[in-house]
Amino acid sequence: MPDLLPLLGDEPSERSDAARNRAALLAAGRDLVAHCGTEAVTMEAVAERAGVGKGTVFRRFGTREGLMAAVLDADEREWQAAVISGPPPLGPGAEPWERLVAFGRSRLVTTLTHADLIRAAGGFGSRSQPAHAFTVLHLRHLLRELGVTGDLPMLATALLAPLEVPLLDAAVRAEDYPVERVLASWLDLARRITAG
Amino acid sequence: MPDLLPLLGDEPSERSDAARNRAALLAAGRDLVAHCGTEAVTMEAVAERAGVGKGTVFRRFGTREGLMAAVLDADEREWQAAVISGPPPLGPGAEPWERLVAFGRSRLVTTLTHADLIRAAGGFGSRSQPAHAFTVLHLRHLLRELGVTGDLPMLATALLAPLEVPLLDAAVRAEDYPVERVLASWLDLARRITAG
Repeated sequence: MPDLLPLLGDEPSERSDAARNRAALLAAGRDLVAHCGTEAVTMEAVAERAGVGKGTVFRRFGTREGLMAAVLDADEREWQAAVISGPPPLGPGAEPWERLVAFGRSRLVTTLTHADLIRAAGGFGSRSQPAHAFTVLHLRHLLRELGVTGDLPMLATALLAPLEVPLLDAAVRAEDYPVERVLASWLDLARRITAG
Repeated sequence: MPDLLPLLGDEPSERSDAARNRAALLAAGRDLVAHCGTEAVTMEAVAERAGVGKGTVFRRFGTREGLMAAVLDADEREWQAAVISGPPPLGPGAEPWERLVAFGRSRLVTTLTHADLIRAAGGFGSRSQPAHAFTVLHLRHLLRELGVTGDLPMLATALLAPLEVPLLDAAVRAEDYPVERVLASWLDLARRITAG
């Protein structure tokens, strides 16, 4: 199962100084997002923190949007690793329903944590196609383990949509719902879909 | 109910020659999309067909993406009108489940028809936020009529996701599923969600 998942691609091989630069810039970007918030991150600030010229940041990431997408991808890779081989119940070893609950909670929290970043990376509040494809495949796997039959890609797509930024923004930010209430609603949806 | 729906905005008032130009450009864009396909539509081709200068197209729509979004909005307004006041079962007057079936079929078909246009208008294959908000409100209304209780915005969001380009492309184009098979899967999802 793990080797079938479309993990976010490894970087193509680079000259070692280029690879070092890239890693330093990414680390600087992630630090700035974590400590100063997405809005505060500029190409200049990342260059300064990484100790390279501004031109290097533009050559590496093209635009601020590209930089944000790279920072998001780095976080996503860590999250994918936790799903594939981290401790249960998010990782393997727990019952499928427990894993589904852990998946929903974890995805909900990471989406809220990264909402500004996801928006800054473009795409109307949705994650990248590879990130989405990974979650669809993981959910298909859990649904199959739960004995659900039917069009699993469609059921997985339906289950994922409420964990993306647009709905969570409306519910958690605009309506001021606590995260636990949104999670409870999501579990109700999951029960409907798995019970059918 | 109809007056609560966030219809795609009316255009701000314009000088009458500007309004005429805009209407002509939009009509030219829609004609070209319908007859030559989205790929064939350029700013130049639209200007020529509408009998105005290329600069006017750029001033009006900014980019090709902006032109595509305007063409899509015009089609979306017609579809919204059919939902609000067109003949049943898509429009009012039919039983709520019949309306839900008609909604699913109609949205599936319009999404497939406009898939290239939706992609060309930007946003990773999703429709604009106002277009999405309209469909969520309409589905909430139908779910309420069907006696469904729970977090209706979340259930509506889940029901809509499989009718967007990414899943339909994977199912209908890549896997070569007939539209009726995708609709049957969607109705299975709708039954699970409304039965719970």
